[in-house]
Amino acid sequence: MTLIIHSVTIITLEQRDDIFQGYVVIEDHKFTKVAKGSPTEEEQQTASRILDGKGKWLMPGLVNTHGHLGSALLRGAGDDMPLMTWLKQVMWPNEAQFDHETVLTAVKVAMMEMIKSGTTTFLDMYHLHMSDIAEIVIEKNLRAVLCRGMIGQCSQAEQEKKLAESTTFFKNYHGEGEGRVSIALSPHAPYTCPPAFLKRVAETAGKHHMMIHTHVSETRNEVDKHVSEYGIRPILHLKELGIFEHPVLLAHAVHVDETELTIIKEAEAAISHNPISNLKLGSGIAPLKQFHALGITVSLGTDSTASNNNLDLFEEMRMAALLHKGVNEDPTVTNAFDILKMATSQGATSLQIENTGVIAPGYQADFILINPATPHLTPNNEGTIMSHLVYSCKGSDVTDVFINGSPVYENEELQLFDEEKLLFNANLLAKKFI
Amino acid sequence: MTLIIHSVTIITLEQRDDIFQGYVVIEDHKFTKVAKGSPTEEEQQTASRILDGKGKWLMPGLVNTHGHLGSALLRGAGDDMPLMTWLKQVMWPNEAQFDHETVLTAVKVAMMEMIKSGTTTFLDMYHLHMSDIAEIVIEKNLRAVLCRGMIGQCSQAEQEKKLAESTTFFKNYHGEGEGRVSIALSPHAPYTCPPAFLKRVAETAGKHHMMIHTHVSETRNEVDKHVSEYGIRPILHLKELGIFEHPVLLAHAVHVDETELTIIKEAEAAISHNPISNLKLGSGIAPLKQFHALGITVSLGTDSTASNNNLDLFEEMRMAALLHKGVNEDPTVTNAFDILKMATSQGATSLQIENTGVIAPGYQADFILINPATPHLTPNNEGTIMSHLVYSCKGSDVTDVFINGSPVYENEELQLFDEEKLLFNANLLAKKFI
Repeated sequence: MTLIIHSVTIITLEQRDDIFQGYVVIEDHKFTKVAKGSPTEEEQQTASRILDGKGKWLMPGLVNTHGHLGSALLRGAGDDMPLMTWLKQVMWPNEAQFDHETVLTAVKVAMMEMIKSGTTTFLDMYHLHMSDIAEIVIEKNLRAVLCRGMIGQCSQAEQEKKLAESTTFFKNYHGEGEGRVSIALSPHAPYTCPPAFLKRVAETAGKHHMMIHTHVSETRNEVDKHVSEYGIRPILHLKELGIFEHPVLLAHAVHVDETELTIIKEAEAAISHNPISNLKLGSGIAPLKQFHALGITVSLGTDSTASNNNLDLFEEMRMAALLHKGVNEDPTVTNAFDILKMATSQGATSLQIENTGVIAPGYQADFILINPATPHLTPNNEGTIMSHLVYSCKGSDVTDVFINGSPVYENEELQLFDEEKLLFNANLLAKKFI
Repeated sequence: MTLIIHSVTIITLEQRDDIFQGYVVIEDHKFTKVAKGSPTEEEQQTASRILDGKGKWLMPGLVNTHGHLGSALLRGAGDDMPLMTWLKQVMWPNEAQFDHETVLTAVKVAMMEMIKSGTTTFLDMYHLHMSDIAEIVIEKNLRAVLCRGMIGQCSQAEQEKKLAESTTFFKNYHGEGEGRVSIALSPHAPYTCPPAFLKRVAETAGKHHMMIHTHVSETRNEVDKHVSEYGIRPILHLKELGIFEHPVLLAHAVHVDETELTIIKEAEAAISHNPISNLKLGSGIAPLKQFHALGITVSLGTDSTASNNNLDLFEEMRMAALLHKGVNEDPTVTNAFDILKMATSQGATSLQIENTGVIAPGYQADFILINPATPHLTPNNEGTIMSHLVYSCKGSDVTDVFINGSPVYENEELQLFDEEKLLFNANLLAKKFI
């Protein structure tokens, strides 16, 4: 099976200026050729499928490194309210009522939204029906890191049960779907996981060679409480507990000091920067400028639809690019190329996924096509594309999405979801909640 | 000519909870009826056109209170660079080469983008071919406030020439196009207009009863320089020069102190808040919380495509809603309803346009339809719509736009622009510049 896509402008994201008109050849889920110009006669004869890109832009698929798909039907259920009021009055009572159908419908709605806006890989941290979610990822040809989120405020027996669920989940699904599925170990956060449990998490990660994903230092209040309870800041504490001896992806890291940033850098841990969620919940603004100055791997996450409220990584890129220029009163703090890397190859690196996020031979064929024939992407030329992708493009400009070399969205049609039926069901189910 | 649109969910924006399924009747450019349920037999018989809204959302059209359409082809021409470098290396040399065709093509591309993303009224401050722009506004059935931007760093004779151009423009076009065109007097900014010239602007505004629109206190450096040059902060200075004796709309007002805010409030001047442009240029973050605490009229503006880089007011609404929650670490600082008012009726009030920005009898029939049948607007029910409009909706969800009761965008087709041809020309013209 050889696929050729020609007549596209390719944004490889390998180097800043690597933008040219050309074609790609895909075999066995990977790019085998990325070239200027047009495919040769011979290439065309040996291809099993040839697609005319009609002047569209071809770039790596986007990578969303933090989210909670299962609660997607709580989009808009409560906004503009203080964090604890929102959790206690909206999130927790509603989530307590979630049944199997609600969670899986929510997951599919979130997947459809992500695909339609150009996301090819995502991380999902949730506590319900994770094996079923893994099966959907496999069936729908998606790439994902799945984590059974563990809250440790329970008996030791329950903690061990959650750890066992996580390791069984890892054994059953890590590497499945031709390698599209990864499983990580996910303690919810230092404020919901006592130190002894976090130690057990670190031991378990070591034993099974698992990546750890956790929320940390999202709000100022959470850090203050941690310090008053344990006499130590959260990230220092995680280091003491052995968490950083394993591959780690931290979500948020909004309120971190210099010592903590040094720990993150030395541990080669990555940060999932979620600027929109952090703003919406009033959590604050993470120090992206310092992350980059230290050379920390930083990727982008949307968090859930209940705290964003969309899953469009083009918006997350734009927010990351704009916010830190403004906060620092310095437009040179971010640039379009670096932001695009955060949403692609740095995302893959954050998730311990190799050879993904660049359009080049040997890389996974996860990519998207964008239609530039619209006023907000005009003028369209090689010199402005990088800027347009970050500062003007919308998720709705994406017309085609390929994962592992196969189309999941083609000519603005989802290939493996019955969108109309799923949205109808989602609206029916949501009536129970909001 | 009576138009009925039925089977829509109406978001009137008159009161927070005014959301219901119903229909609207439009006659002579205005709503004559806005009601729950379905039109009566009699209403249907007397209508000249009946449209089935098919479950779409119907809300007031958006109002963009600050922009520069003429430079739209410089989108993406220079980003991520310091303000003065960008102005000197990118904006000014390129703008110096603009010919008539370039400016008018840019204007049309910007208009198409604004219409397609739901904007029905805009303000344009530019210095070239303003009469031709007014003719386009009239021809294309748009609503706009047009200002011949005046830089006062020139001889007194040239200053007077610019003032005369502005007043002639006012006499020729104010109220034209069935009242869709307004003309305002627009000194560029206190840092480009010497005090004596600003005094003449105030006198001229008084003589002709014109609204004044100016940039002010956009960057910290600009305010510092003003203080060191004149010994007084810019807004205090504008008050001394008589500017606030007339209706005033200030763009930006990022760096303002409490005394200045009191002046703005007492003068009943309005502020065009441009959060994305202010972030992108590294100007900073305007104190929206304080604006609202004082009861100042605040609307939203995109500024130009060269400093945003799009004209989608849904993005501007979302940024305004999110940014101030995060900066203040308080999610209650903004709410969806207030943000929607900023982008609609407060926009109209800022522009001295009456009876616009609410779906109610007697109001101008400027409105948009939105298709909610998409994952990112799911779940779709009356309780979540307000939230979705601010936190998840994209300009591309707009399917229909009516201005003054007439369709300018219907079923995702522009009615009065040849989009394909204009984009083709725009791309050709842009080759000269970037």
